[in-house]
Amino acid sequence: MAKVLSSKEENYAQWYNDLVLKSGLAENSAVRGCMVIKPYGYAIWEKMRDELDRMFKETGHENAYFPLFIPKSFFSKEASHVKGFAKECAVVTHYRLKTDEVNGGIMVDPDAKLEEELIVRPTSETIIWNTYKNWVQSYRDLPIMINQWANVVRWEMRTRLFLRTTEFLWQEGHTAHATRQEAEEETLQMVKVYAEFSEKFLGIPVLVGNKTESEKFAGAVETLTIEALMQDGKALQGGTSHFLGQNFAKAFDVQFTNKEGKLDYVWATSWGMTTRMIGALIMAHSDNHGLILPPNVAPIQVVIVPIYRGNEEFPLIAEAANKIKAELKALGVSVKFDDRDTQKPGWKFAEYELKGVPVRLAIGPRDIENGTVELARRDTLQKKVMPQDGIAKYIHQLLVEIQQSIYQKALDFRKASTHRVDSWDELVDVLDNKGGFALAHWDGTKESEDKIKETKATIRCVPLDAEPEEGTCVVSGKPSKQRVVIAKAY
Amino acid sequence: MAKVLSSKEENYAQWYNDLVLKSGLAENSAVRGCMVIKPYGYAIWEKMRDELDRMFKETGHENAYFPLFIPKSFFSKEASHVKGFAKECAVVTHYRLKTDEVNGGIMVDPDAKLEEELIVRPTSETIIWNTYKNWVQSYRDLPIMINQWANVVRWEMRTRLFLRTTEFLWQEGHTAHATRQEAEEETLQMVKVYAEFSEKFLGIPVLVGNKTESEKFAGAVETLTIEALMQDGKALQGGTSHFLGQNFAKAFDVQFTNKEGKLDYVWATSWGMTTRMIGALIMAHSDNHGLILPPNVAPIQVVIVPIYRGNEEFPLIAEAANKIKAELKALGVSVKFDDRDTQKPGWKFAEYELKGVPVRLAIGPRDIENGTVELARRDTLQKKVMPQDGIAKYIHQLLVEIQQSIYQKALDFRKASTHRVDSWDELVDVLDNKGGFALAHWDGTKESEDKIKETKATIRCVPLDAEPEEGTCVVSGKPSKQRVVIAKAY
Repeated sequence: MAKVLSSKEENYAQWYNDLVLKSGLAENSAVRGCMVIKPYGYAIWEKMRDELDRMFKETGHENAYFPLFIPKSFFSKEASHVKGFAKECAVVTHYRLKTDEVNGGIMVDPDAKLEEELIVRPTSETIIWNTYKNWVQSYRDLPIMINQWANVVRWEMRTRLFLRTTEFLWQEGHTAHATRQEAEEETLQMVKVYAEFSEKFLGIPVLVGNKTESEKFAGAVETLTIEALMQDGKALQGGTSHFLGQNFAKAFDVQFTNKEGKLDYVWATSWGMTTRMIGALIMAHSDNHGLILPPNVAPIQVVIVPIYRGNEEFPLIAEAANKIKAELKALGVSVKFDDRDTQKPGWKFAEYELKGVPVRLAIGPRDIENGTVELARRDTLQKKVMPQDGIAKYIHQLLVEIQQSIYQKALDFRKASTHRVDSWDELVDVLDNKGGFALAHWDGTKESEDKIKETKATIRCVPLDAEPEEGTCVVSGKPSKQRVVIAKAY
Repeated sequence: MAKVLSSKEENYAQWYNDLVLKSGLAENSAVRGCMVIKPYGYAIWEKMRDELDRMFKETGHENAYFPLFIPKSFFSKEASHVKGFAKECAVVTHYRLKTDEVNGGIMVDPDAKLEEELIVRPTSETIIWNTYKNWVQSYRDLPIMINQWANVVRWEMRTRLFLRTTEFLWQEGHTAHATRQEAEEETLQMVKVYAEFSEKFLGIPVLVGNKTESEKFAGAVETLTIEALMQDGKALQGGTSHFLGQNFAKAFDVQFTNKEGKLDYVWATSWGMTTRMIGALIMAHSDNHGLILPPNVAPIQVVIVPIYRGNEEFPLIAEAANKIKAELKALGVSVKFDDRDTQKPGWKFAEYELKGVPVRLAIGPRDIENGTVELARRDTLQKKVMPQDGIAKYIHQLLVEIQQSIYQKALDFRKASTHRVDSWDELVDVLDNKGGFALAHWDGTKESEDKIKETKATIRCVPLDAEPEEGTCVVSGKPSKQRVVIAKAY
């Protein structure tokens, strides 16, 4: 078997790119920075979307859909928002093409220039709050608990499949509340939804915390984040939940009559998770053989590969395989019987390792004689021969164990890669030589944070659940009451 | 109760617009021609999407995602395609905004002009076939059976909510095949999927047929369509399935080695259904009280409204309601118990009539005494008092009956509105005075079709299942072997 992937120890970035391409998740398109999400990658996104959607609905949210385009002037309305987003947008200036009479082909019709340019949404706060304005008069109209599944565009100069693309898919929640407290509770609830989704569904442990002033969302009062650790020791921001205060309500003049009969501005949150999380999923678990997918998110959980020489051997193997397949399906397990005769078993083994199918069964003539089957776990690469009788029930339980085991492995790695540092030199040593999360005291000032950024690392978050601890800032030596999480990041 | 809708007999267009707004399905946005799909409208779209998606997967298709943007030059590659689409597109010319130092606010950065303009996809054949080119070498790589759920943009001068909007949501299937026969079979299979979906899920009877040369999709060899009849006697094209021949394969040079070892161009299909179908759903069934939704597509199938004066009456009513709710949920029925004390029962009755909830239950103090409940059917507006015992099972069956009854009513209307005409005068009489479908002989020429178009009607389709019948064209008097369907259309 030829090696299809670069080694992740030698070149992590190349390994990642090879893996995305070779496992059939996605590829670059003819449009700079935009990717094609191939069926296998999209099947993973569908599973993520369905689970998140279920969690959103369980917490009282509904879906809706707002326009792709946003009038340019909307971006100027919220002062800090424009600074954060205006620079990297796709701008629609015309609405018609016409035949190019001189050069052939087609050209932009100069007579079809828009009066006001339209921006392809990089995020939808502005168009949504312009809409909410008409929906809210009284406290009885609140809360509004809406989520949108959509594509967004942020013009990126350097792109990487899933991790940073010009167009990406995401969900964006936008809620409106009568009180500050309710909006703050919603902000916290949604970051906790993200954390639970990441840990229980994707098997990726995360730290939950506040972004610093300089790292928070443009227009937010406060940004909560989940931060995951990749195998190369770099952090990845997995999802953010923003308490927007009354900023957008003031920018779009969204007022309501409260229970006391007084006019007040509406309180807001927004929160989002994107196809970038597929990149996190890949980098958190996979190895040099290919993807390792937690069973919850695997489009195919079990694959059955028949091993036979002559055609006369096939029918009995197929019979056994189809019986197991039916039993697994009855237990709600997604299973594929790969009976193609155009590919050899060895090719199939490598293919499903590359694609990260959690459990592989192989059935050959000897298995038919003995009533057995060979079972291989993708995450540990362990193989064993097992009786066919009861195999479906065994696998059903094994998938739960694999899900847990993948999470535990990532958690152990994060523990081993988390370093308490108490001086600048220790911090730099972790960032430059060890990688991972550095837990360091920080005095809360922009000056110290800027100094940290010179190492090319950033303060990932101020953890929510950290123990209060007196200490001194590793930059300034000034007093600090809590450690923050510092790391280089994607 | 004040009348909230215009009468559909007096002004059908106004009734439709009122209904979409008042029932909370959608509204116009700040962006010309783009709508906001509100939660109730989007919940209907989700039900439609989930059912179609299930049907697509059952027929062997997978989902994927392709870029929103298409390089301008791609549109010139398929000659007839460019004619059909190039005229009404949103064109991205720049990728950055900047602070306007002179006038304040923000402006398009003139330094950030794209070398080649990008078109916001009006449909994705070109970008997808440019991608398939790299996926296909041999017949072993075929078929490719891919669907995409996406937003598309076609610049429309006159828009109407759902029926014609600049941005709309849709699915577009794009398949690639080794043989002409396989592609033709796929084209037919998918129009049949649309017909079944429309009839069984939305309760809208449809005619299935071929579009004429002048009405087919730009780039297709043949277009199959489903045509529905609205209550005002106008036709609505509900979904189309295109046999694209080798047109796009030739335009994008997609060749493969066939089983005989020879190079050949790939055969293609594409097929789509859009949020426009929500407009059809509304116009096929609803009345002057509001929406009438077939139970299959209704976000809320049953609503329970408590009727009580004093707070002491409420607990027993709530107990009975929650018991029925639990029983219905266990049967898979979606049910809402509207226990808000901010609105009166009469207001709620009107609200759920407006929203088309198929079954309404009302429970008052006398019902508690008698162990009864008042059941109202939205489609017939019939009410009756029933025992609480066994009500869930009764409703579960009633929903099936309502689904069938709504379809039958639409079918009866279509039968009564379908007219065989054998002369030009009869045709004009139907089109101008009666409305509905005219079945007329046509000689198959463009000249006769153009003459028909002068009436502002079009040939909707040449039905697939029509009996062969000798006759003479109502325009030219020349011989014809089959009747075609002529109607004014949305």
